[in-house]
Amino acid sequence: MKRGLIQIYTGDGKGKTTAAVGLACRAIAHGKKICYIYFHKDPEKWNYGELKTLKKLGIAVFGFAKEYPYFHKNVSIENIKKECGKSLEFINDIFKKKKYDILIIDEILISVRDGSISEQELLDLLDKKPKNLEIVLTGRQATKNIIKKADLVTEMKKIKHPYDRGIKSRKGIEY
Amino acid sequence: MKRGLIQIYTGDGKGKTTAAVGLACRAIAHGKKICYIYFHKDPEKWNYGELKTLKKLGIAVFGFAKEYPYFHKNVSIENIKKECGKSLEFINDIFKKKKYDILIIDEILISVRDGSISEQELLDLLDKKPKNLEIVLTGRQATKNIIKKADLVTEMKKIKHPYDRGIKSRKGIEY
Repeated sequence: MKRGLIQIYTGDGKGKTTAAVGLACRAIAHGKKICYIYFHKDPEKWNYGELKTLKKLGIAVFGFAKEYPYFHKNVSIENIKKECGKSLEFINDIFKKKKYDILIIDEILISVRDGSISEQELLDLLDKKPKNLEIVLTGRQATKNIIKKADLVTEMKKIKHPYDRGIKSRKGIEY
Repeated sequence: MKRGLIQIYTGDGKGKTTAAVGLACRAIAHGKKICYIYFHKDPEKWNYGELKTLKKLGIAVFGFAKEYPYFHKNVSIENIKKECGKSLEFINDIFKKKKYDILIIDEILISVRDGSISEQELLDLLDKKPKNLEIVLTGRQATKNIIKKADLVTEMKKIKHPYDRGIKSRKGIEY
């Protein structure tokens, strides 16, 4: 990228992760080098189709804090925080190596919402973004300060969702 | 799908098409058979990365009404309507053949907004959806009646977009 921007997909509607995945699909066809980091999703619990396809497309995929209360009953908050701390080091390292054109960090805004990463830690991280790197952040409840730091923000607003009618997550659609 | 739903991604924010593409990426890993139809996009004018990647993944991709005023100055509205009429026949044929699990129709809501497909034509089409087929519609300005017919609706709401600062569409990001 001539100048990489910061994009955010937030809100309570469906489409945040898939929009980031779709962006990766678009970019890979133009020869962009992409790194996809996900938080709080355990592929051993749910068989996330998108992670398989991204890897198949040659996109580098990494997961942090996979053990999360949604899937695991006895996860210590300390362990989640430790994992999130590691992820920040990992991302800093990516910034230094300048190997990628696009860095997608799926659900990092959930880590911030939960307090596993502080808002300030994320803001500081974003300040260190290399000029040419495009960053995509997803997750509910982006804070005002994070939105302020971003160049592009879409709120995925739920108008209707089948969960509200008791329809559960479906393989191939929700994961 | 046990019971396929109707999903809509609408609104003025970035992420509608990419969310549909990301959904296709997710579903293909679970062995779903997917058909992706796009409207009003001319791959000879813009090199849409997502279309290349979808094809590479083995997803069936078809385009209708590719000649559109955004890319071509002298397109007749009659020609666009004719092309849209053909697409409805094509989709009806897909319904009959029951070859796919998921049908994505990218930007069809723009055809309805423009009057190239009437709201009633789309509603009638959706009434004929086979029970097991999941349908995903994208495009701005979904009408109330179309939203009523859908099971899942996300409004991609623009909070910030670099277009507003004069930054033009970027290859690998916007197409």
